[in-house]
Amino acid sequence: MSETDKKLVLTLSCPDQPGIVHAVSGLVGEAGGNILQSAQFGDPDTGLFFMRVSMDVPAVEPVKTRVEALADDFKMNWNLDEIGRPLRTVIMVSKEGHCLSDLLYRVRDNALPIDVKAVVGNHPDLAPIATFYQVPFILVPVTKDNKPEAEQRLLDLVEAEKVELVVLARYMQILSDKLCGRMSGRIINIHHSFLPSFKGAKPYAQAHDRGVKLIGATAHYVTADLDEGPIIEQDVARVDHTLTVAAMQKQGQDVERRVLAQAVKWHAEHRVLMDGNRTVIFH
Amino acid sequence: MSETDKKLVLTLSCPDQPGIVHAVSGLVGEAGGNILQSAQFGDPDTGLFFMRVSMDVPAVEPVKTRVEALADDFKMNWNLDEIGRPLRTVIMVSKEGHCLSDLLYRVRDNALPIDVKAVVGNHPDLAPIATFYQVPFILVPVTKDNKPEAEQRLLDLVEAEKVELVVLARYMQILSDKLCGRMSGRIINIHHSFLPSFKGAKPYAQAHDRGVKLIGATAHYVTADLDEGPIIEQDVARVDHTLTVAAMQKQGQDVERRVLAQAVKWHAEHRVLMDGNRTVIFH
Amino acid sequence: MSETDKKLVLTLSCPDQPGIVHAVSGLVGEAGGNILQSAQFGDPDTGLFFMRVSMDVPAVEPVKTRVEALADDFKMNWNLDEIGRPLRTVIMVSKEGHCLSDLLYRVRDNALPIDVKAVVGNHPDLAPIATFYQVPFILVPVTKDNKPEAEQRLLDLVEAEKVELVVLARYMQILSDKLCGRMSGRIINIHHSFLPSFKGAKPYAQAHDRGVKLIGATAHYVTADLDEGPIIEQDVARVDHTLTVAAMQKQGQDVERRVLAQAVKWHAEHRVLMDGNRTVIFH
Amino acid sequence: MSETDKKLVLTLSCPDQPGIVHAVSGLVGEAGGNILQSAQFGDPDTGLFFMRVSMDVPAVEPVKTRVEALADDFKMNWNLDEIGRPLRTVIMVSKEGHCLSDLLYRVRDNALPIDVKAVVGNHPDLAPIATFYQVPFILVPVTKDNKPEAEQRLLDLVEAEKVELVVLARYMQILSDKLCGRMSGRIINIHHSFLPSFKGAKPYAQAHDRGVKLIGATAHYVTADLDEGPIIEQDVARVDHTLTVAAMQKQGQDVERRVLAQAVKWHAEHRVLMDGNRTVIFH
Repeated sequence: MSETDKKLVLTLSCPDQPGIVHAVSGLVGEAGGNILQSAQFGDPDTGLFFMRVSMDVPAVEPVKTRVEALADDFKMNWNLDEIGRPLRTVIMVSKEGHCLSDLLYRVRDNALPIDVKAVVGNHPDLAPIATFYQVPFILVPVTKDNKPEAEQRLLDLVEAEKVELVVLARYMQILSDKLCGRMSGRIINIHHSFLPSFKGAKPYAQAHDRGVKLIGATAHYVTADLDEGPIIEQDVARVDHTLTVAAMQKQGQDVERRVLAQAVKWHAEHRVLMDGNRTVIFH
Repeated sequence: MSETDKKLVLTLSCPDQPGIVHAVSGLVGEAGGNILQSAQFGDPDTGLFFMRVSMDVPAVEPVKTRVEALADDFKMNWNLDEIGRPLRTVIMVSKEGHCLSDLLYRVRDNALPIDVKAVVGNHPDLAPIATFYQVPFILVPVTKDNKPEAEQRLLDLVEAEKVELVVLARYMQILSDKLCGRMSGRIINIHHSFLPSFKGAKPYAQAHDRGVKLIGATAHYVTADLDEGPIIEQDVARVDHTLTVAAMQKQGQDVERRVLAQAVKWHAEHRVLMDGNRTVIFH
Repeated sequence: MSETDKKLVLTLSCPDQPGIVHAVSGLVGEAGGNILQSAQFGDPDTGLFFMRVSMDVPAVEPVKTRVEALADDFKMNWNLDEIGRPLRTVIMVSKEGHCLSDLLYRVRDNALPIDVKAVVGNHPDLAPIATFYQVPFILVPVTKDNKPEAEQRLLDLVEAEKVELVVLARYMQILSDKLCGRMSGRIINIHHSFLPSFKGAKPYAQAHDRGVKLIGATAHYVTADLDEGPIIEQDVARVDHTLTVAAMQKQGQDVERRVLAQAVKWHAEHRVLMDGNRTVIFH
Repeated sequence: MSETDKKLVLTLSCPDQPGIVHAVSGLVGEAGGNILQSAQFGDPDTGLFFMRVSMDVPAVEPVKTRVEALADDFKMNWNLDEIGRPLRTVIMVSKEGHCLSDLLYRVRDNALPIDVKAVVGNHPDLAPIATFYQVPFILVPVTKDNKPEAEQRLLDLVEAEKVELVVLARYMQILSDKLCGRMSGRIINIHHSFLPSFKGAKPYAQAHDRGVKLIGATAHYVTADLDEGPIIEQDVARVDHTLTVAAMQKQGQDVERRVLAQAVKWHAEHRVLMDGNRTVIFH
């Protein structure tokens, strides 16, 4: 971060107690800054307090120093970042390209603040899309036997590129508990159903069998518990009896890509905070 | 049915085969009538064919006779009714009045073609609403011990009033398999979740715990399998982290009453046909 | 307001400048209180700053005194109220009862924090609904000749009952500029179209002619400029070619009542602030 | 069309009269075919009857001959086509690529039955997208002075490639009345507002000024009357006070591309029939 007239976003969570807002707004003033937006939430269930503050400041360091001091006093988890700085990101895919194509289009269109370091595929099918958008495509086939090696390659990439976010854009492999644990809160998956309905495989076939009138998609953080991680965003689309499973799938893809792009955008804008297995989202 | 210039609606289902549409449209012509609307659907999974035809005819009997003959040839399940004839209906309730109030308002406003013969409550709370809309309220308390008697009272009412439709408008009791079987396809329930998510009790508390971003409601036919009957209509509403369970519940009530009213309307207009555990709906 | 442990909501707007959040949060702390929720917005177009803070305080007066002092310094428009205190409200109606019925049901269900002092109708049709909900119904017929007298009766009622909010629940009369001016920001109307489409009379007929695929409703503050006041809420419903004007109207009524109830709720919870001809809404 | 076992779709409109459904279903039977789907609509306002029938037939010619004969009797406008045959299409663009990118992705994904013969741009910006999807890009700059020549080039292309559909995918030029007339019912435009709100230029700026709570997009057939052609599809997205015009625009683009793709799909599947200035859509 350079040091002249920066726009910053501070997110924090801590046990709720009086005086937090005042302390944070005071800190901004002392650092010679101005608050642009501010939002907060106290969860009565967990007793936790969440806050997101964006600010205009003459320099970063004085803010950072003061936040560190405050964090000690209030036992805060916090993050301070420049507004708009793109997150270093890896997108993982298999064969279906609707989410990848959509994400990369948005990135190029300056509609999604991520910097895609690589697309990792366990099949080669989507390499051309990555190439068109001038993103390296890395083929990492996954078999029953090489899963640990494949994950290690991902972890090496994460380390080499200082990757901050991994997006599973219809990546049809289950990540190991170890990987989920190490990247906790930094892997976003799109599940092609309205969770918790139709967990697991072939959700559109399940939805068709059950005769639902709406299908959906769910973007969530990945945890060791499959399809059980904190939900970031969900949406639905109307279906009727005339749709085959294949037609539902096509229609669902529109919802999937929209929901995933929205979740990634909010995450990259530091709008999503974890509250146990739920998320607090400051729109 | 009187016999001069009637508007009728015919619904039918049968094994799919060529010639059904032509036979039905021919029948209408032979009876001197004109087709107003017509819709059909062939389900490739079950091999069943579904049709709904509305028509303007000089007399009912010639149509009926021809339909009976056709039904033999094609092994049809069928129903012939006057368009707009209100279905003789009983609404069952417990303590929450949002669905009841909404349904009765729509009936009085001529927006729902049902003739509500009685409101049956297992608590007295909603009697005033029924009374205001000039519908008899019958208190039938249900305890662990008197369930069979309570259901018998309902069945007696169904028989006495020739009830064609029972609407469970947030009725918090489970009906016996026997009753479900006897009234198959004629009991509509509103479940306060987006099925199959959050079956069973306290769906809003479950939804809150899971941190979903949309809540929903589902209107379905009641079968012996709790919350598993054929779905007629579903809808959702957006929620966020600030909502308590109680607030979700209030917001969900808006969805519940809208979804239930829609399902009852379609059913009463003979737009819903059963296709195994799914429904075909001709809008 | 009594003086022991109150929950208050403060709303304010003023020219934007650094230090406002800090000053407000400081004020709450000095008064021995705790901030429950806080939201703010600075409009880059108008240079105005908007804030809504809810708080838990031991006593009201110390807060009020401090807000008054602050308001002078920052040239604030402000409002301080107890959370949940119902607004003294009059609902005005003509012949269509869907909005009235819905609003009164919600009030009785504790879902809408307004205290309906009277329903004023220019036709007697809806008196029974008011009576059922135990609200006085006042018939004030309006003709070409008696408009000023009719409005004077409304103003007398507003004064006598200290009415804070007037809701036009499908009231089919245009209010005079004088009345609009006197009650500025305190009259909410529901217009039965998605404004600015289809202003003026018969919006559903206009919508039908134009062949739109969605119809809508708009709740807005009433100003002297017909159908041009600041919009609070809008929503839409899908329609198709099969719907007659009358069917569109019935379907639209569902949207109207939902949109109006939402707008009244947000207003009564002090979530709506005026920003020129636009509204800032703190959800 | 080859002549063994074809799936066909017949669309027709004519003055309403008894016997049309029977005649059409009879024709299919006589040709040895089977009806797959059938839908019809009689417009009470215009007295016109609309029908769409899909069928499985052993050969095309016998159907065609019979339809021609029927068309004479009933004064039908009609169209008979193979199901799934892609329409020969030209897409016209300026600088914004979200719609183009989306349409071409769907075509490659077999989700949109059009065969894009060329992308015509009045700016070179989007050539790479066309090239990536292996579609010829033709640069046809338009100035005040060369408009007739530019349109002639388009018409030449239409003739040379037997183009059946022109899609204006955010093409920022107004077509001449002459062109609109010649291609009536075969040009689809996406307007970036919820028509009839915010016709003409800069609809998002207009929407922002008016303070609407939903923005929308409208796909419609192009007529000589700007932004007044028959509407095929519309949808909306929620906005709030925090969005700048630029942010609204980005958000609106998601709606635009979804609505345009839907309209093109329905058109290409022969689901859209013109009914004066309205459309009949058989979903």
